This record gives sequence, structure tokens and C-alpha cells, in this order.
Amino acid sequence: MKIAFIGLGNMGGPMALNLHKAGFSVEAFDISMATCEALRAQGLSIADSATAAAAAAEVVVSMLPAGQHVERLYMAEGGLLGVIKPGALIVDCSTIDADTSRRLAEAAEKVGIEAIDAPVSGGTGGAIAGTLTFIVGGKAAALERARPLLEKMGANIFHAGDAGAGQTAKICNNMLLGILMIGTSEAMALGVANGLDPTVLAEIMRRSSGGNWALEKYNPLPGVMENAPASKNYAGGFGVDLMLKDLGLAQENVRAVKAVTPFGALAHSLYAAHSLGGNGALDFSSIIRMMQKPE
Amino acid sequence: MKIAFIGLGNMGGPMALNLHKAGFSVEAFDISMATCEALRAQGLSIADSATAAAAAAEVVVSMLPAGQHVERLYMAEGGLLGVIKPGALIVDCSTIDADTSRRLAEAAEKVGIEAIDAPVSGGTGGAIAGTLTFIVGGKAAALERARPLLEKMGANIFHAGDAGAGQTAKICNNMLLGILMIGTSEAMALGVANGLDPTVLAEIMRRSSGGNWALEKYNPLPGVMENAPASKNYAGGFGVDLMLKDLGLAQENVRAVKAVTPFGALAHSLYAAHSLGGNGALDFSSIIRMMQKPE
Amino acid sequence: MKIAFIGLGNMGGPMALNLHKAGFSVEAFDISMATCEALRAQGLSIADSATAAAAAAEVVVSMLPAGQHVERLYMAEGGLLGVIKPGALIVDCSTIDADTSRRLAEAAEKVGIEAIDAPVSGGTGGAIAGTLTFIVGGKAAALERARPLLEKMGANIFHAGDAGAGQTAKICNNMLLGILMIGTSEAMALGVANGLDPTVLAEIMRRSSGGNWALEKYNPLPGVMENAPASKNYAGGFGVDLMLKDLGLAQENVRAVKAVTPFGALAHSLYAAHSLGGNGALDFSSIIRMMQKPE
Amino acid sequence: MKIAFIGLGNMGGPMALNLHKAGFSVEAFDISMATCEALRAQGLSIADSATAAAAAAEVVVSMLPAGQHVERLYMAEGGLLGVIKPGALIVDCSTIDADTSRRLAEAAEKVGIEAIDAPVSGGTGGAIAGTLTFIVGGKAAALERARPLLEKMGANIFHAGDAGAGQTAKICNNMLLGILMIGTSEAMALGVANGLDPTVLAEIMRRSSGGNWALEKYNPLPGVMENAPASKNYAGGFGVDLMLKDLGLAQENVRAVKAVTPFGALAHSLYAAHSLGGNGALDFSSIIRMMQKPE
Repeated sequence: MKIAFIGLGNMGGPMALNLHKAGFSVEAFDISMATCEALRAQGLSIADSATAAAAAAEVVVSMLPAGQHVERLYMAEGGLLGVIKPGALIVDCSTIDADTSRRLAEAAEKVGIEAIDAPVSGGTGGAIAGTLTFIVGGKAAALERARPLLEKMGANIFHAGDAGAGQTAKICNNMLLGILMIGTSEAMALGVANGLDPTVLAEIMRRSSGGNWALEKYNPLPGVMENAPASKNYAGGFGVDLMLKDLGLAQENVRAVKAVTPFGALAHSLYAAHSLGGNGALDFSSIIRMMQKPE
Repeated sequence: MKIAFIGLGNMGGPMALNLHKAGFSVEAFDISMATCEALRAQGLSIADSATAAAAAAEVVVSMLPAGQHVERLYMAEGGLLGVIKPGALIVDCSTIDADTSRRLAEAAEKVGIEAIDAPVSGGTGGAIAGTLTFIVGGKAAALERARPLLEKMGANIFHAGDAGAGQTAKICNNMLLGILMIGTSEAMALGVANGLDPTVLAEIMRRSSGGNWALEKYNPLPGVMENAPASKNYAGGFGVDLMLKDLGLAQENVRAVKAVTPFGALAHSLYAAHSLGGNGALDFSSIIRMMQKPE
Repeated sequence: MKIAFIGLGNMGGPMALNLHKAGFSVEAFDISMATCEALRAQGLSIADSATAAAAAAEVVVSMLPAGQHVERLYMAEGGLLGVIKPGALIVDCSTIDADTSRRLAEAAEKVGIEAIDAPVSGGTGGAIAGTLTFIVGGKAAALERARPLLEKMGANIFHAGDAGAGQTAKICNNMLLGILMIGTSEAMALGVANGLDPTVLAEIMRRSSGGNWALEKYNPLPGVMENAPASKNYAGGFGVDLMLKDLGLAQENVRAVKAVTPFGALAHSLYAAHSLGGNGALDFSSIIRMMQKPE
Repeated sequence: MKIAFIGLGNMGGPMALNLHKAGFSVEAFDISMATCEALRAQGLSIADSATAAAAAAEVVVSMLPAGQHVERLYMAEGGLLGVIKPGALIVDCSTIDADTSRRLAEAAEKVGIEAIDAPVSGGTGGAIAGTLTFIVGGKAAALERARPLLEKMGANIFHAGDAGAGQTAKICNNMLLGILMIGTSEAMALGVANGLDPTVLAEIMRRSSGGNWALEKYNPLPGVMENAPASKNYAGGFGVDLMLKDLGLAQENVRAVKAVTPFGALAHSLYAAHSLGGNGALDFSSIIRMMQKPE
């Protein structure tokens, strides 16, 4: 199967390589020449342009930073919707607003192309290891067409609903994740301030009604979990600024549908303050520093 | 072993019965005569007073509503510390402030009595079924003395640390639980407002980084989990006013140790508003109604 | 001076009438025919279309609900920027995002037209009485050209800065107003819950460091100020949904400039919950009901 | 008139001196000998003990840090209620919980002494200048007896209601002040992030519906007001830790009366974080630093 892969950053690069290694015929492109050259050196075939990559493809995969980039790549004048062959499939893995995903699906349908939104979670580690989680919006049949590719890049594939639903479900999940991380940080810091042993407290809450993913996999307090970013000076992992972006997308959606999310809104504010304080590149579990005396 | 059990409410009553059924010699007491009579009818031996129950006991178990009741029962003039035999053990299962628990342990030690704080979670269902979780503060040896009793009333026993640590760990856990429930409610309501299928969204988040106890056991949206209070008009379960009490204890502690808990503080406010609006007796997962249009 | 006035709703209608009464030659238009007829009956000259009204005008005043309407009226294909005479002045009184205001000013400048953003505060009462406050963004010279008109519609005119600055300053002010109203509501309700006389408390805080516009002009508790919306069942005044819109614009801007506004974000959430609960049409001071037992 | 003055700290010291300078016969005492010596050097008559000072007094004025100190001074065994002459008047100027104030008034009444709570605002500057604001709880007649003294120490005297009402009204006011300051900081920082001139924005909001005491007297942004603490590196003024104490008293009361104060609760959390970050001794307007990039 001929695949075009557009957007070869920290996530897209390893994802494209995984497809290539799995034996798919991949033509890749990124607007950064340096990025293209680095991946060419790892064996990836690089096209001259997004258009050149997409023209012959049966599936076009894209991984871009924001809705405006997706808009420009596909829907603007001279965009790929005028280039991709009817009958082909678009798999957009970017995390963007659901509205843009829905408009892409509709515009694609008009020219005989199927499009699904398939945002991922799992970070750069998951992208390299091929263990990402895909949360997919679009027709079930289109997801089945994409499944053989997705399985080479990820370990979990969820079908959230129609076009845009992948974005919405991801944003709901990540808003909840931001809230869990702040709540877990508060509870851990409160226990420690009272003299509790953090490892004991973490274990008690993990196995009780406070149990959540952060206590399971990603304790925010240094030393509690050897492999968590907290124990590595908050390096690696999922950055504060990426969490801030997702919380911002959630709030944009909150206003559009007139939802009520006091904790989601406050989480956005606290991460914004944390980022403004110079911590944007740290792992998002570093929010616990807001609850601790500086060393 | 001779046990005195003081405080026979919705939690204490079934706990005392479980000890009785397990073959312990239990002398019980409650200030409500009606409560005493109801339990006598179920076979429990009722003493004439707390003093009468405690005088001969090797272990005194208590389950009272607030710190002031524990203070009065044990430490006031004429309190049980002047009655209980040296060498006996106090197991206070009340959820109260850690400071009172610490003062009880110290005062007891002075008269040759050991005392542990052993607040529970698991609700009235867990009290009846004998599947409570005990979070214990006090000396390890004292916990071992209590273990045979605790195992007849509960399924999980955690040792959180020294005297008072049981209270602190429970309050950390329950503050986090309140936060999880509000965050999960926001995420579920946001997804539904976007047209997602709630069962699909719940399953995606449960298995992703938003995973937490509320999604696992206690989804706040009616219809997602057949046996959750949400699907029974928010009857049963853990009441709004009990969650409010625990969040209040947490905030009292926050001020004492100068901790920082923006979400814990806001959770207290939101539950206070929910209670003021007339929902104090509903299950605490009903907080999702704040995020939904009234029917 | 020939004036075109586009958008004749609850605010625009009385504003246009005030210009007419002051002797300006006004050609007005609204997309609602009923609205046009009602104002024609009050003596306003109604044009056949926005284009017809604007073609001959020296000043075009507009009062529209949202940024997309301003975009469409002026900047879309066939929009007024292709119709209005070079040298004319646009005074857009709509409360919209600053970005649209800036783009309008730039696009207008390219075709030789000056444009200022002049959002108002003061409500429908102020629009009728001609006592609005204008917060203007744009060149000082352009503001001076507009001043004779603005003075017939309002009592205060502020120059906030360059194009878009009127919108930004208004949004800062209204975000602060939402915060003041919630804070004042909390303080009043807390005092009353403690048995204080609300009028005495209001007077003490008004004259102390808690003093603010809400205590001065607009106490949220019924009975404290005879003429405040609170004393009229929260009728009239500035509606919950309008406050919610402005708080939403503020949060949109917050994300764009990466600002930190925990109270602004939470105010948006609380007003959203209040609106979802069915109070969208009440005056915004009704937020105090969230802090009171329902009657 | 013979006055005993107990508690001669940063506030009490200058207050006692003002009474002395006004010609009252003042016997003063503080548990710090150094403090006593410093004031003796300024002409104040120092007693050997609180008891010695109070025994002959017609009015006992006290200015202590917390409720427990007031409790100990007056109500504990050997406390002043057993020393002060029947018919005398207690004027407690400490900012403490209303409950302690009410208990003091009741206990005093039983031994024929009148007591009023008269917490102050206005800071050390106001204490020195004699321009404090007194917010008084207690009987009107008792306030009239105290008025001649209060007028030598302050410029404004409010009667909030019965015993304890002074404390409650002050706590309501100061909670609102904390909220105003955070809200004003957010609005100022948001405007500046958008490129507005801070002085222009401050003036617009001050004269519009965002108007409040912070904009009037105490702008949190350096450079906007020459004499505000913000323009003096946040030195002087009302410290972060004092605001934190008052917000904590408010939250204690909130729980006691089951009130709903989301902003009051969050203000407490934000000031707690600010203090934990090492800013406890700065003026409370420094909270704006949480909304700004560090220099």
C-alpha cells in the first residue's frame, strides 16, 4: 500500500519510520529540510513536496501542530484535496479542534475521499516504540481501512464516533488528565506536609478511591517512582506547554458548546502560570512544584 | 477477647454485628436507646453505658461523628481513659481531625493504654458486608493487636504511619476522590455536550491516561454503570454532606500545615454550593448535575 | 454630517435614534424588517440595505452581536469596504475580539478609510438615555472625528490605545466586573449567613478596602439598594448571558496572549453553570443565588 | 480615664502611644521585654504584668495575634476576667475568630464587665498616624463608652452589630479585598500582555464598572501609582502572610456556617502558594507576580 506521510516532527518522524519498517511504501515530507534529511538517513523515502508525496498515495497520514496547518495542507487553495486520488483515505493524527476535523471530513467527502481524525496519546516514547493510543473519529469502515497502519504505530485503537469525535474524546481525556495530575499533586504534597511517607501514601491512595492513572504510572513526587519524569528532574514525558495546549483546546470547545468545567478552566490557568514561570519545557507532573516550598 | 463497641450508627452498628457474628464477646453502647434496641434485637449485647461497656474490655472500638465526640468520650472529665484497664487497646474508627487522634494516643499512653486511629472507607455497604478499608495510624505492634478484629470488619488494612497518620491519609485520599469525581463529571458532561456516546467515552478514558476510580467503579452519569448510584437517582452511596465534611477536614488541615490545594479548596466550595442547593443527601456523584441542563 | 447606522437591536436602535434626534442625517438598516419598521415609526430613516445606507455616508456606525458579523458586513466579498467612500470613517461599537477589530482597521486603511473600535458599556438604559461609556481603540485623530457623534450617545469617552485597544480594555474591565460581582456576592452572603445586617455590612465594605462598583451601584442582595436589579427580581440590567459572552471573549484572548487569569477563568465557569441552570436572561448580579439557599 | 493596653507589637505599640499622647493614663504591657523597653523610652508607662496593668483600669485594650492568645489573656485560669474591676470595659482590637469574641463578651458579662470586639484595618501606617478603621461588634452603649479612645487611634468607626459582628464584618471585607486584588491583578496583567498602557487601562477601569479600592488606592502594577507598595518593590503595606491569615479565618467561618465562597477559597489557595514561594513578607499586591513573566 502506498502511503504519504506529511509532518515528520518528534511524533510524526518515528511514526513514519514504523510504517516504513513494517514494509509499507512510504513517501514522506516535512517543511523542514533538516528534518527530512535526518529521516532520509534512517531509510525513509523523502518526496519533493507534500503534493508530490500525496499524488500517488492510497493513504495520506498527517501529523501537524495545529488546526490552521491542517486547514492549509488540505483545504486551502492548492491544498491536497485537489491532489489526492478519489477513493484514497486521509488519516489525520494531529491534535486539533474538532470543528476543523469535521470540516475536513466533509470537504474530503465531496471529492470522493474518506478522512478520519486519529489523534494520539503516548508521547514520543510511544511513537518510537509503536505503542501509541489512537482515538479515532469517522466512519467505522474508514477506521477499518486504516487499522493495518494504525496497528504498526500503536497498541490501542478506540473508535470514539463520527468525524471530529476522536478530537473531542482526546480533549476530554486530556482535560481529565490535567485535573488528575493537579489533584494528585495536591494530595501527595498535603500528605508530605503532614509528615506521611510519600511511598506509603501513594500506595494507599492508589489502591483506594483516590486511585488514578497518575498514581498508577506517573507519580509527580520525585523518588516515589523510579522511572517517572518526576524522578528525572521532570525531563522527558509530556511537556507543560503541550498540556497547556490541550487544556486550551478543551476550553475553546467548552465555550462553543456552553459546557461547565470549573476544574478544567482552573487547570488551564494553573498550567499557564506554571509555564509563564519558566517551566514550559518540563514534564507536566512538575505542577506539584506549585504546592511545594522551593529548594 | 472482650470488646466494647461505642457508637452504633449506620456504620458502627453493622461493624459491631460483624464482630459479634465472628465470635467476639462484644458489649455495645450508643446514646440512642432506639438504636441500641434495634441492635439488641439482632443479637448484640447492649451495655448500660459506655463506661459499663468499656470497664472490662480488652479492646474498645469507637465510631463517632466528629472530633468533639471522641474528645468527650475518652478525654473529658469522667471519660473512658479513667475507666479502661491499663494494657487495653483503643481502636477509634471515627473520621476526625488528626490532631485529636494524636492527642488521644498521647493521653492514652500516659495511662498505659495503646490507641490507634483507624478511619474507614467503603460506606454502609462495606460496613454490612465486612469489606471496609481501614487506614491506620499508630504503632505497628498496636495495629497487629487490632488486626484480628479489623479483618472481620474489612477487606483492606493499610498502615499509614504514627498516631494521626490514618486520619491524614484518609483525608488526602478523600480530597483526591472529591477532585476525581468533579473532574470526571466535567469530562463526561463535556463529551456528551459534543454528542459523544457516554459509554464509549467512559471506556476510552478509563483505559487511557484519564483513568481513575470514578470511571472504574462509580461513573457519575446515569445509565453508564447499572449499579452506580448515578443509575439509581443518586440514592445510596457516599452522601454529598459526608464528602463536604471530609473536604472541610482537609481544608482545616491545609491551613494548619500551610499547604496549597487550589482544587481541594474549590471542590469544597462546589460541594458546599451543591449541598446548599438541597442535594446534601444525594450521592456525591450527583455533582455532575452542576454541569448539566436541569431536566 | 451623513451617517449610516447598521444594526438596530436593543442597543443600536436607541443609539441611532439619539443621533437622529441630535440632528444628524441618519440612514439606518437592520436585517430584521420588524426592527426597521418599529424604528421607522419613531422617525428614523430606514435604508433598503446596508450597502444603500453606507454608500453616501461620511461616517458608518455599526452595532453587531459578534466578530463574525463584523467580518461579514465589512470584509467579506461584497462587503462595505468596497462601498464606503474613501475618506469616510467607520465607528464599530460592537463588542468583539480585538483581532477582528485590528484586521478591520488595517483592511479599511488600505482603501483609504479610517476605522475605530468603540465598544460601549452602560446597557440598554444607557443607550436610551445617551449616557453610555465608549472605550475607543484607534488613532487619536479618528477618535476626534467621531467625538461629536459619540457625545450624543454617551457620557464618557476613553481612548484606550491603537486599533483593537478599545476591545481589549473593555474585556479587561468586564472580566474584572464579573469577578467583583462574584466576590461581592460571596462577602454579602457570608455576612448574612453570620447574622449581619446586609445594609450595615454593605456600607462598611463600601467605605473600606472592599469598596467596589458593585457595592457602590449594584448590590447583588435584594433589598439593599432599591433601584438595583437585585431588588427587581434581577430583571433589566446586564444579563447573565451577556456577561458570559464577555468572559468568554476574555478567555479567548487569555489563551492568545498566554495570560494567567484564575479568577477570570473560574468566573466564566460559574456564569456558565448559572446560565445552564436556566438563569441566562436574569441580571448578572443574580449569581449571588449560587451562594444562597433557594427559597 | 485609666487605660490598660496589652499587646504592644507593630500595631499595638503605636496605638498605645497615641492614647498616651492624647492624655489618657495608660499602663501598658507586652510579653516581650525588649518591646516594653523600646516603648518606655518613648514615654509609655510599662506595668510589671498584664494583671498589674489591668487591675486598676477602667478600660482594657488588647491587640493580640490570634484567638488563642485572647482566650489565654482573659478567659484561662488566672486570666484578666478575674482581675478587671466590675463595670470596666474591654476593647479587644485583635483580628480573631468571631466565636472567641462572642465567648469573651458572654464570659465578661457574667462578671459585670462589658466587652466589644473592635478589629482594625489600615495597617501599621494607620496605627502610627491614628487613622485606623475600627469595625466594632457589641452593644451600642459599650461602643459609645469606647468611642473617645477609638477616635484617638482611628479615623473611621463602624458599628457592625452584636458581639462578634466586628470580626465577621472585617473578615467579609478582607476576603473581598483579597479577591479584588487578585481580580485587579489579572485584569492589569491581561491588558499589559495585550500591549495596553497600564496607566490608561487603570484609569479606564477605575472610572468604569471595574472600579474598586485597589484601582483607587493601591494599584498592584509597579509604576502606576507612585506611593503604592507596588512601586516600592512591594515593601510596607499589608503583608501576604497577614492576608493569608485573614483569608484563613474567613474559610474557617465559611465552614462553620456552611457558606459558599469559591473565590474566597481560591484566593486563600493562591495566597498560600505565593507565600510558600517565599513571598510571605511582601505586600499582598505582589500577587500580580503570579500573572507575570519573572524578570
